[in-house]
Amino acid sequence: VKVDGVPTRSIWLEADGWSVGVIDQLALPAAVRTVTLRSVDDVARAIREMRVRGAPLIGATAAYGIALAARADPSDSALDAAAGQLLATRPTAVNLRWAVQRVRSSLAGLQPGARAEAAYEIATRICDEDVQINHSIGMHGVKLLRALATRNPDRPVQVLTHCNAGWLATVDWGTATAPIYLAHRHDHPVHVWVAETRPRLQGVLTAWELAQEGVPHTIIADSAGAHLMQRGHVDVVITGTDRVSASGDVANKIGTYAAALAARDNGVPFYVAAPSPSIDWQLADGVRETPIEERDPRELSVVRGRDERGDIAEVIVYPDASPALNLAFDVTPARLVTGLITEQGIAPATRDGLARLFAGVTRPA
Amino acid sequence: VKVDGVPTRSIWLEADGWSVGVIDQLALPAAVRTVTLRSVDDVARAIREMRVRGAPLIGATAAYGIALAARADPSDSALDAAAGQLLATRPTAVNLRWAVQRVRSSLAGLQPGARAEAAYEIATRICDEDVQINHSIGMHGVKLLRALATRNPDRPVQVLTHCNAGWLATVDWGTATAPIYLAHRHDHPVHVWVAETRPRLQGVLTAWELAQEGVPHTIIADSAGAHLMQRGHVDVVITGTDRVSASGDVANKIGTYAAALAARDNGVPFYVAAPSPSIDWQLADGVRETPIEERDPRELSVVRGRDERGDIAEVIVYPDASPALNLAFDVTPARLVTGLITEQGIAPATRDGLARLFAGVTRPA
Repeated sequence: VKVDGVPTRSIWLEADGWSVGVIDQLALPAAVRTVTLRSVDDVARAIREMRVRGAPLIGATAAYGIALAARADPSDSALDAAAGQLLATRPTAVNLRWAVQRVRSSLAGLQPGARAEAAYEIATRICDEDVQINHSIGMHGVKLLRALATRNPDRPVQVLTHCNAGWLATVDWGTATAPIYLAHRHDHPVHVWVAETRPRLQGVLTAWELAQEGVPHTIIADSAGAHLMQRGHVDVVITGTDRVSASGDVANKIGTYAAALAARDNGVPFYVAAPSPSIDWQLADGVRETPIEERDPRELSVVRGRDERGDIAEVIVYPDASPALNLAFDVTPARLVTGLITEQGIAPATRDGLARLFAGVTRPA
Repeated sequence: VKVDGVPTRSIWLEADGWSVGVIDQLALPAAVRTVTLRSVDDVARAIREMRVRGAPLIGATAAYGIALAARADPSDSALDAAAGQLLATRPTAVNLRWAVQRVRSSLAGLQPGARAEAAYEIATRICDEDVQINHSIGMHGVKLLRALATRNPDRPVQVLTHCNAGWLATVDWGTATAPIYLAHRHDHPVHVWVAETRPRLQGVLTAWELAQEGVPHTIIADSAGAHLMQRGHVDVVITGTDRVSASGDVANKIGTYAAALAARDNGVPFYVAAPSPSIDWQLADGVRETPIEERDPRELSVVRGRDERGDIAEVIVYPDASPALNLAFDVTPARLVTGLITEQGIAPATRDGLARLFAGVTRPA
């Protein structure tokens, strides 16, 4: 999608042909800055510090991380160390594991001298596939939005989303936002309620993206979504996901489960945009078994923003005497999910539903 | 309860015998500052700016506002103007209306020369009653906590609360916190999950209070409560209220409804500490009829805290191009409320339950 009117991806190969450029998400929305990643250390740090974030983008960036590692040292031991380092950065999103294992295993049969080039090729393919996957999710999702538009023809379709499952969280299009961008480009009126998403306020990234594309939107406190649904102001909830269990349970940013409960109580359909690399086919029970990342409580107690001059500044908002707990994700049980919007179509959030949709689809190793 | 070990109320008559002292809640937790209110204008401003907040404390402060008005000009027209000015400050909490009407109507039969003294008397009585009411709520609520303690005897009772329904929001004890403070003083181990309560972070006030009393607690993002309940880390939710309908619907800080939904989904009891002045006996359907205050969206987009030196500072957290909507309250349908903890005992959240509990109780006009 566009930044200042210019079509942009969130990750790219730099002109030197080997270093990797990404948008620094910590600087947004105050400034559009880019970061150049030149080693697996750079990649691991960028993921850990959340300069790059969003399950699909984490996967794509980690894939380039293996390529950068292979360029430095293509030995098995070096590649295994790099894979281990990357896998340790963020535990919840399964795309990271999927991408790292895909690149790593593809290199196993190759001579060391051929590995770096092959790794770059696969990483680039992962990026291109991500764009295609998200566009397909958009095409399936936009049909939903069109159907909802007929219910209240006198107003835009009201979509609520949580966190940032936008193009910044992917290579392009976003997952939850792909249907929104396609609807907007095809002149189907849409308005997005953007949950700010404490503690890291990724909703601000979503708002910034939507503003860049000219999509009408309004930011709200996370806890306001339930009230808006009760008052009839939300037609559909669409979120992204960090990991979908084989049974349809959805791990996503903390607060997604609460949004799903509110949707259920008010008869609002709750959809999850789930690209296939976010499906963990080995995970039977997402509620019990998904590893939930616990992050530094200072992400809660210290709020980052702009000061009067527009410079990045921080304020401490909690008393020093009070501890805080920062769990970054939660799991929405499949029973609360109306459907999973995948690149193959929309599946019911059940083991059968997912298995049937992906039957016969070749999944890259 | 205590500030720096000294028993303190949140509102008091100053040594001059007529001006009114309150704690400036905008300065907390960075600093304990007091504000002296010398006119009805001062009172209206302090309520509007949220230097005083919390339904019971708003009521008590507004009662003194009528007394200050009567001291300046005890004519009917001046008192009616003062009442109107105060009622316009905050629409959702019914305690404000209750307190203003109680003082105003008590003065109607008095000669102008006798009104100021009478108004101070009633305002002081409202404050003393509030302390008694909250202590009674505490005595009823602590029985609940003791019963819950027997279920998990190996750990403290885990209470989750939203916003600040503590002594700062009342004259003393708080509503939701009264059972917690009494349990703690009687050596019943309790731990409180404090939802930070965006946008104004009143959870920080709750955390500060709890720290002053030495009650173990942990601050969480508002959206994290549901996940903690799903993981079995919450034994009971207790919140305050700004207005309970005659049928048991509960208006309270935005986010309360979402907490109630999470409690229901996880079999966690959800109680509301409801002093009788917060019951709106005229309101039949709280979900449809409660006026919901919409506040300045800058309360969302500008976050107040401390800078490195401990001075109060603000950062802007939303992009300028993105609008925000700041609805301050929501309504939890009675069906989600396990019980209303009142000074008369615990009522089911139903018209019959409330009516039976208060049958024969003389309610001050």
